[in-house]
Amino acid sequence: MTNDTICALATPNGIGAIGVIRVSGKEAKAITSNVFSKSLEGTVSHTSHFGTIKNEEGALVDEVLVTVFDEGKSFTGEESVEIGCHGSPYIQQQVIQLLLSSGCRMAQPGEFTQRAFLNGQMDLSQAEAVADLIAAQSRGAHNIAIKQLRGNFSNKLKELREKLIHFASLVELELDFAEEDVEFADRTELKTLVSDVLAYIKRLAQSFELGNAIKNGVPVAIVGAPNTGKSTLLNQLLEDDRAIVSNIAGTTRDVIEETLNIEGLLFRLIDTAGIRENAEEIEALGIERSKDMMRKATVVLCMADATVENEVDRVASWVEDLNAAYPEKIILPVINKVDVAEISRDWLQISAMEGTGIEALKKELVSAVQGDFDLAEETIVSNARHYDALLRTSDALQKALEGLETGITGDFVAMDIRQAMYELGQITGDISTDDLLGNIFAKFCIGK
Amino acid sequence: MTNDTICALATPNGIGAIGVIRVSGKEAKAITSNVFSKSLEGTVSHTSHFGTIKNEEGALVDEVLVTVFDEGKSFTGEESVEIGCHGSPYIQQQVIQLLLSSGCRMAQPGEFTQRAFLNGQMDLSQAEAVADLIAAQSRGAHNIAIKQLRGNFSNKLKELREKLIHFASLVELELDFAEEDVEFADRTELKTLVSDVLAYIKRLAQSFELGNAIKNGVPVAIVGAPNTGKSTLLNQLLEDDRAIVSNIAGTTRDVIEETLNIEGLLFRLIDTAGIRENAEEIEALGIERSKDMMRKATVVLCMADATVENEVDRVASWVEDLNAAYPEKIILPVINKVDVAEISRDWLQISAMEGTGIEALKKELVSAVQGDFDLAEETIVSNARHYDALLRTSDALQKALEGLETGITGDFVAMDIRQAMYELGQITGDISTDDLLGNIFAKFCIGK
Repeated sequence: MTNDTICALATPNGIGAIGVIRVSGKEAKAITSNVFSKSLEGTVSHTSHFGTIKNEEGALVDEVLVTVFDEGKSFTGEESVEIGCHGSPYIQQQVIQLLLSSGCRMAQPGEFTQRAFLNGQMDLSQAEAVADLIAAQSRGAHNIAIKQLRGNFSNKLKELREKLIHFASLVELELDFAEEDVEFADRTELKTLVSDVLAYIKRLAQSFELGNAIKNGVPVAIVGAPNTGKSTLLNQLLEDDRAIVSNIAGTTRDVIEETLNIEGLLFRLIDTAGIRENAEEIEALGIERSKDMMRKATVVLCMADATVENEVDRVASWVEDLNAAYPEKIILPVINKVDVAEISRDWLQISAMEGTGIEALKKELVSAVQGDFDLAEETIVSNARHYDALLRTSDALQKALEGLETGITGDFVAMDIRQAMYELGQITGDISTDDLLGNIFAKFCIGK
Repeated sequence: MTNDTICALATPNGIGAIGVIRVSGKEAKAITSNVFSKSLEGTVSHTSHFGTIKNEEGALVDEVLVTVFDEGKSFTGEESVEIGCHGSPYIQQQVIQLLLSSGCRMAQPGEFTQRAFLNGQMDLSQAEAVADLIAAQSRGAHNIAIKQLRGNFSNKLKELREKLIHFASLVELELDFAEEDVEFADRTELKTLVSDVLAYIKRLAQSFELGNAIKNGVPVAIVGAPNTGKSTLLNQLLEDDRAIVSNIAGTTRDVIEETLNIEGLLFRLIDTAGIRENAEEIEALGIERSKDMMRKATVVLCMADATVENEVDRVASWVEDLNAAYPEKIILPVINKVDVAEISRDWLQISAMEGTGIEALKKELVSAVQGDFDLAEETIVSNARHYDALLRTSDALQKALEGLETGITGDFVAMDIRQAMYELGQITGDISTDDLLGNIFAKFCIGK
C-alpha cells in the first residue's frame, strides 16, 4: 500500500489565493518533475522552486511554487512534494489530473497521516490528534489536541506500559522457576505498582467526560420561570463573548448560534430557542420536552427571580429534584435581579440586566465543568476510542490486582497484565489491525 | 502604505489539512521570528523551516512549516514569509493574532497583488489576471487568464504603445520645426501605421464579447414547442459533460446547475426549469417571459420536432423573426427526432433520444460562439475595464486618422495620439490613479 505515490489537495476546497497539493511516496519528486518545468532530482530538502506546470498538450496550467522534502524529513516520512498553485478549483483539478496520469494515485482519506503513522513519524494517538487539532474550535480543545500531537499522552502511556512490562516479566520469570517456588518480585511492591498504574488509568478515564465536553462543547440548559431573565442572561453572556473574540475572517463562530467561549472552554446553549418560547413548560418538570433538554445538558442553570415571592424556595426544591434525578449533572442555582431585591442564600447572585455577578457565574461554570482536573498540567482524554481502551485496561488491571490480593497463581496475573498492555497498546497503535486503522483514518478528510 | 508588513490567510476559509498565512513587507522575517521557534534572520530565500509557534503565555499554538522569500524574489517583490500551519480556523486565527500583535497589519483585499503591481512584479492587467485565473471555471476562461497573467496581452499593448510613441514623437518633432514647414514623417506611412494599430485595437475590442462569454459562460436558451425533446436534449448534453469531467473533490460544478462544458467553453442553460415548465408559452414570442429569456441568451437554440406536421416551417418563421428581432444573437435551428421522421432541410439534424447529431451540435455551438477568433493564438479581452479603455483608444485613434486624412495640423493629431496612449496606459497601469487601483483591488479577496 505504501509503495505507491499519492496526491491530494491539502487546503480547503474553494476559491482562495493559494491552494496546496501534496504528493508523497517514493516517486514524489520524479512524478512532479514530469509535470513541472524543472527537474526536482537532486534538489535539496526543504527548498522551494518556482516554475510552471504544463498539460500534455503543452498548454500552461499554472505558475507554481514547488517545495521538496526528502525521505525521513517530511510529515509522512516519505519523499514528499508540496505544490503551491493559485487557489482555483479548476487549476487544482488540472494539476491533480496531471499527477494522476503521471503515476500518482489519489490519496484515501487520512492516508498522509496514516503513512506518517506507518512510517513511525508518530503513534496512533498522535495521528488521531491531527484530526482533533484541525477541528478544534476553542483554546481548551486545541490545548488537548496539540499536547496529544506532541506526544504528552503517548509518553505517559509508554511509561505506564514499561512499568507493566517490567512487572509482567518478573511474574513470568517466576513461572519459569515455578517448581522452585521462588518469588522474584515482592508481592506488596507489585500490588502497589499495579494499583498506582490502575489509579492513573482510572483518572485518565475519568478525564474523558471533561475532555469530551471540551472537544464538543459543554451543553448548558438555562431553565427558569418566564420573565426570570433567561434571555437577558444569555444576551449578556453572548455579548461578553463577542467582545472578546475578534472578528478575523475564517472563524467559524457565526455558524453555530448560541455558543459561548469562556476561558477557552466552549459552552453550547442547547435548544435555547425552545427554552425561550416554552418557558412556561419548564416549571412542570414532568413534561417530555424539558426532560429531554435536561438529558442533553451537562450543566443545568436554574434561575430564580429575586423579585417574585417564594420563587427561590420553589427553585430550591427543583434543584433538589434535579440533583436526585440527574446525579451526574452539574445543577447550578442562580438568583437573578439582585439589583432590585435582596435574597440571603448561598447561591450565585446576579443581575443579568446590569451585568453584575456575570464574571462569578462564568468562573463557576468553568470550575464546575473542570472539577479537580488541572487543564494546564494534566493529560485529558478526549477520544472515545481511547476512553474505551482505558476502561478495558482498567478492568484487566483490576482483575490482576484482585488476583494478587487473593493470591492466585502468577500465570493468571501475568495474563491480566498482558491484557492490560494489549489494551493500552491499541491507543498508541503498538497493537493495531487494518480494520482499526481503516476505521480511524476513514473519518479524516482527503488531503490529511 | 507599502512601508508596513501585512499578513492574511491565503488559503480558503474552512477546515483542511493545511492552511497558509502570508506575510509580506520589510519586517516579514523579523516579525515571524518573534512568534516562531527559530530566528529567520540569515535564512536563505526559498527555504522551508519546521518549528513551532507559541503564544504570549508560551503555550504551543501549532507545529508549522515556514518558507522564506527574499526581497525581489517573492510574489509581492518584498521580503515575504509563508507560514504553513494545520488547516484549523482556530489555529489560523491565533497565528494571525500573534502576527498582528508582533507588528503586522491585516492585509486589505488584494493588497498582496497590489504590492506586486506597485513593486513592478507585474503590470495592472497581469494583476487583474490573478483574480480571473483564480475564478476561472473552464479551460477557455483559464486559458485567457493565464495568458494575460504571463503578459501576452501586456506585451501586445506595449508593442502598440511603442508604435504610437514613435509616431507621436515624429509628429511632435515637426511641430518644433513648424515654421520651416518640414515633414519628417511620410503622411501615407503614418496613416498606414495608425490604421493598422486601430484595426488591431478594434479586433481586441470585438473579442470582448467572446472573452466575456468565455469568462462568465455563454447563456443558451433552448426553445421549442412542448414535447419537442428539449429536456431530452439537455439531459443528453449534461450526461455527456458529466462523463467527461471527472469527479475530483474541489470542482465547483455541482453548485451551478445546468452548466455545460464543451471543448473548454462554459455554456449556461438559462432558466431551463422555466423553459421546461412553460414550454407552451414559448410559441407566442410576444410573451414577456420568453422575451426576457431571449434577451439574456447569447445563443438561442430553436428546436423543431420532425414528427409534427408543419413544425419545421413554423420554426423556420420563428428563426426569421428572431434573427430580425435580435440581430446580434446566434439563432441556431435544430431538427429533433430524425430517427423517427426525415426532413430535408439544411439544419442541424439530431435525435436527442438516441444521441445522434449531438457531437455536431456541440461543434456548432462552439464554432458559433468562437466566430473567427483563434482561441489558441489570438489575444482575447475578457475584462470590461480593458474593453472600455480599448473603445476609448479606438475613438482617439479614429480621430487621429480622420485628422491625418483631412490634413489638420500636427498638434491636433499628436493630441489624439497622446490620448490613445493614455487610454492604453490605463490598461497596463502605466497610467493609474489611487481610485482606479482601489476599485480594482477592492474586488479581490483578502489574502490575494
